[in-house]
Amino acid sequence: MTNEFKVKWTKLKDTVDQRMMQLVQKERPVSLYDPLKYCLSSGGKRIRPLLLLLSAEAVGGDIQNALDAAVALEMVHNFTLVHDDIMDHDDMRRGRQTVHKKWDENAAILAGDALLVVAYDTLADISPIHLQEISKHFSSSILEVCEGQALDKEFESRPDVTLDEYFEMIGKKTARLFAASCTIGAILGEGSEKQIKALQSYGELLGIAFQVQDDLLDILSEQNVLGKDRGSDFEQNKKTFLITHAEQFAEQKYLDQLQEMRKNKHLGIDHLKKIIDILHRCGTIEAAKLEIRSCLEKARTKLGVLEDNEARKFLYELSSTIEQRES
Amino acid sequence: MTNEFKVKWTKLKDTVDQRMMQLVQKERPVSLYDPLKYCLSSGGKRIRPLLLLLSAEAVGGDIQNALDAAVALEMVHNFTLVHDDIMDHDDMRRGRQTVHKKWDENAAILAGDALLVVAYDTLADISPIHLQEISKHFSSSILEVCEGQALDKEFESRPDVTLDEYFEMIGKKTARLFAASCTIGAILGEGSEKQIKALQSYGELLGIAFQVQDDLLDILSEQNVLGKDRGSDFEQNKKTFLITHAEQFAEQKYLDQLQEMRKNKHLGIDHLKKIIDILHRCGTIEAAKLEIRSCLEKARTKLGVLEDNEARKFLYELSSTIEQRES
Repeated sequence: MTNEFKVKWTKLKDTVDQRMMQLVQKERPVSLYDPLKYCLSSGGKRIRPLLLLLSAEAVGGDIQNALDAAVALEMVHNFTLVHDDIMDHDDMRRGRQTVHKKWDENAAILAGDALLVVAYDTLADISPIHLQEISKHFSSSILEVCEGQALDKEFESRPDVTLDEYFEMIGKKTARLFAASCTIGAILGEGSEKQIKALQSYGELLGIAFQVQDDLLDILSEQNVLGKDRGSDFEQNKKTFLITHAEQFAEQKYLDQLQEMRKNKHLGIDHLKKIIDILHRCGTIEAAKLEIRSCLEKARTKLGVLEDNEARKFLYELSSTIEQRES
Repeated sequence: MTNEFKVKWTKLKDTVDQRMMQLVQKERPVSLYDPLKYCLSSGGKRIRPLLLLLSAEAVGGDIQNALDAAVALEMVHNFTLVHDDIMDHDDMRRGRQTVHKKWDENAAILAGDALLVVAYDTLADISPIHLQEISKHFSSSILEVCEGQALDKEFESRPDVTLDEYFEMIGKKTARLFAASCTIGAILGEGSEKQIKALQSYGELLGIAFQVQDDLLDILSEQNVLGKDRGSDFEQNKKTFLITHAEQFAEQKYLDQLQEMRKNKHLGIDHLKKIIDILHRCGTIEAAKLEIRSCLEKARTKLGVLEDNEARKFLYELSSTIEQRES
């Protein structure tokens, strides 16, 4: 990452973080506002608002006019994290206890609900000229995220999920919000129809690459970097790219070996090494890396219709960051 | 209830019900859309959309222009029911199993989330002229409902809740959405500032009366009429009007008797009779009835600033219905 991009990202991240904290400054009821402050102070990467703001700038718009929407989108992302963590029984997130673990499920349900409402409240501050179009886009995207999460949970109990179904699921659960970030940014930046479409595709492809990378990191990343238990997707029988690919394409003997690993209640480092070894032999790790590279290359191609400016350069850089990320 | 009003209510209810079902017609993912269809087909009274539509009409507006907002508000109400039922571990609602009981908690969390998103999506279809103002009002109301629910849960473990705190809680949890219904209806009906304020107060007072009546019905209503277990508020140590009033004003001997009743894991008809008897002796039942009557009288006074038309007449009638309702 160039220093220029790093400075820009940090600056935008700080602005978004400050705005979000201002939105949940109330003290009472403590059982609502303490969890809200906690969620929003956990230091996420803020990729979605970054995408939204860079997209606005890339089509010649002013970042200031897109800030409310960027904050709203990040709040939506945090809403999904809080509720998904309950559903997935995940205890750790970004290196800290999840809300339902630190408080209880009720607090987490309510905190998630409130994050979503505050997101919409913030979105309503954008220019009234764009409010209807963007509200519709915002809601249809979030509904798809809910559909994606429903599919994700359905897939856990299904042994026959195909890679096509996997891509449908992550298309909704992850890529849709990436695409919405870019689209909304481009609309608020007054981009042309062609620019909006290009950025939407860029966001979607980036989102798919991001999720496949996420699936890889569950197995490959160094402990403590991820901020959550390594191998937890595998333990929960999540239909990640890795599992879906292996189940569709690997020889039976490898599937039997993976099945054998499932018997371990908690995966130690030796189990993980063994799983990585099996997935290498089936060609699954290589297929995942290829998928990521291919999506990111396609994503970069989409940026071709934009004018050559700093924001576009940063969007290129962001795509490389996705491939190199370790957490 | 006059036959005229009954016909009108049924007609509006059917229109709202049909619109809601159209909004969740998708088939897949079944784990999301089946619970959604189930929630919205449970035959609620649809008081909030009725309030919204009558308010629009009472200030001279057209019901058609307020229909999207009415549907959105009823979806929000259903969202709160689905999530509150998880938090309160309630198994029955409107005579049927609650969503988390019929499916599971994950399905209920996700169905509630989707209801809220579809509500906002529907709201965005109102006239763009009003969208910003009404979106802000909509979100601040729902956030207060979340705050009210948080207070409600906090109060369960507090022995010293005052009647003032109780009114703060129900003001947020129940009355706020009643008030929002009237306000949004009046804004969409192009009412004057004075008319909007009057209808907002009417809605709030009606909401308070509705909730105190709800608290009374938990103890007084005939089994099977309520669609949920009688006495469940008492069992869950909910700070209803009855309990809060008794704990603040009743003599110690009555409180001891109530405490004694708490030892029963499940309340039978004899226990309920005994509880009613104690609450009569402390003057709590009478105080609740007085509170309801007083709120409804004040509510009716607010309608004085409106012109004399059919919708205003129905709003008067609705206030009487609240006092007489048995479920």
